[in-house]
Amino acid sequence: MKNYKPKNRLSKQAYIDGILRGDRVILSRAITVIESNLDSDKVLAKEIVQQILPNSGNSIRIGITGVPGVGKSTFIEAFGLYLVKEGHKVAILSIDPSSQRSKGSILGDKTRMEELANLQEAYIRPSASGDTLGGVANKTGETMLLCEAAGYDVILIETVGVGQSETAVHGMTDFFLLLMLAGAGDELQGIKKGIMEMADMLVINKADGDNITKSKIAKRQYQNALHIFPLAESGWSPVVRTASAIKNIGISKVWEEILKYKAHVDANGYFIKNRNHQQIKWMYNNINEELKQLFYNSKDIKNELSRLEKDVIAAEISPVKAAQQIIEQFKKSF
Amino acid sequence: MKNYKPKNRLSKQAYIDGILRGDRVILSRAITVIESNLDSDKVLAKEIVQQILPNSGNSIRIGITGVPGVGKSTFIEAFGLYLVKEGHKVAILSIDPSSQRSKGSILGDKTRMEELANLQEAYIRPSASGDTLGGVANKTGETMLLCEAAGYDVILIETVGVGQSETAVHGMTDFFLLLMLAGAGDELQGIKKGIMEMADMLVINKADGDNITKSKIAKRQYQNALHIFPLAESGWSPVVRTASAIKNIGISKVWEEILKYKAHVDANGYFIKNRNHQQIKWMYNNINEELKQLFYNSKDIKNELSRLEKDVIAAEISPVKAAQQIIEQFKKSF
Repeated sequence: MKNYKPKNRLSKQAYIDGILRGDRVILSRAITVIESNLDSDKVLAKEIVQQILPNSGNSIRIGITGVPGVGKSTFIEAFGLYLVKEGHKVAILSIDPSSQRSKGSILGDKTRMEELANLQEAYIRPSASGDTLGGVANKTGETMLLCEAAGYDVILIETVGVGQSETAVHGMTDFFLLLMLAGAGDELQGIKKGIMEMADMLVINKADGDNITKSKIAKRQYQNALHIFPLAESGWSPVVRTASAIKNIGISKVWEEILKYKAHVDANGYFIKNRNHQQIKWMYNNINEELKQLFYNSKDIKNELSRLEKDVIAAEISPVKAAQQIIEQFKKSF
Repeated sequence: MKNYKPKNRLSKQAYIDGILRGDRVILSRAITVIESNLDSDKVLAKEIVQQILPNSGNSIRIGITGVPGVGKSTFIEAFGLYLVKEGHKVAILSIDPSSQRSKGSILGDKTRMEELANLQEAYIRPSASGDTLGGVANKTGETMLLCEAAGYDVILIETVGVGQSETAVHGMTDFFLLLMLAGAGDELQGIKKGIMEMADMLVINKADGDNITKSKIAKRQYQNALHIFPLAESGWSPVVRTASAIKNIGISKVWEEILKYKAHVDANGYFIKNRNHQQIKWMYNNINEELKQLFYNSKDIKNELSRLEKDVIAAEISPVKAAQQIIEQFKKSF
């Protein structure tokens, strides 16, 4: 089944040429190859990515997160429309390992960004499906490279602020934006620990009508809280702004801050340093992931591990000795 | 050299009996075996740990961190003396991968805790030396088990709040205490991101004399900041207290809070859940560490990696493809 070669595939060169001239249809078909689990497609995908690599990278990559209900789609639509009006080409991707293509991921429902989706200068692609976060992140990362090669100069990668995918998005973007709501309390419980510390900017959305006062208070609270935390390696102090995506208020200010950030990290060298670091880390993450698969996918190892887990909890074997035992077993299995 | 067997070693049973009857001299000698890098000692160490395992675990394990200058030694001495007075047996360990035994680690200089060091009910052991954090953490973890088996019912594990060792300490303790100073600003820059989010309690030390007002302000600021962050899995809201270790003020309150925490996590089941989780994670950390060593210690792999890093940064090969290539090479090497 996995070796079946789909008939509707183009030649490698046709994909590459299409992407480089910004052909959206070809771009979409190339991304389909990247997302495919067929063995023949995997080979083709690697070759396409390899060829467009020198044309990738010319963009600002922005990660956006926030819990469901924060108005993420509305914000991204307003922000995207603003960017297109400013002359940018915007690609909108997402990472959501929990999504199934059939069920439609966060962005699967393009109708939620109808106006933006209809523009030639915007490209919206739902999250790839996959079993592991690493696998999904790989696909989104390669899709991002293709979009850059196709001329998109602003990449928005969204994720839901409840899982580990934020770290993946943070690891592949230049700027990390966290959407929040005023009124704190309940909504906040949805945001995982550590996410706030990754943010370069907090935007308190839905700051309109009765919410304006509450939003201003929240803004001050977050500002105070963030200032107590140490400065990031970028040397950038995270900023807090209020906005109302639905009323189109505060959107241009978000972009202004991102441009300020870009100027700041260009000047101090962090932008390129971080990009290089991310590329290298991407490689090592993949190496470590494949190394683990080599180990943990072995059936003998799996059986032995579940036995050892029980023994460790029962204090019948020390964790260190258990680890040593199973590594010896693995070495002998080669 | 590594196979040389030291003459002053006791029999396995002598170590075990000594530890179980709380003999401090034997305990120290057993820890020396654990910290040794001699092959024969490694075998002996595993056997000792294995035998005392059923007698370990009956303690509360408290991680303590804070940047240099926060008064950690003074605090630990005051806290330790208080605990002994309350009838506890206290063991004080530390994790500091950067320390060399010869240079003396943070706690190496026992004279800094002279009064405590002289008590029979307190046991102070400086950080093990070692090349990797994982190795040092293993040794400290096993030392902790030995101390528990020797009847120490409060284990304090200290570390300097500037590196990754906090995560290691957090991963082996029940309660995590962060020492801070009022006046924020500069001192805070020393604390790494993420450490504050691990804390179950913040103690603002040196809250005496002219510092009292500043400390109260800092207390309120930290309280506000911490409340904005989501609740930990334990369901415990971190508390902030002021103290002056040197004047012996606020020390009993710290212990009161720890007892409250213990009652809370005993009641909701988190205490035992977390302990089990830590044991399992300890095993998996060791497995993954040894797996990586198997890979990264190979000389061919090392050479190839430094070549690939350059190519990845120069965008000559994609990170995903680079990873795949080197894993294939590794598989063939067996």
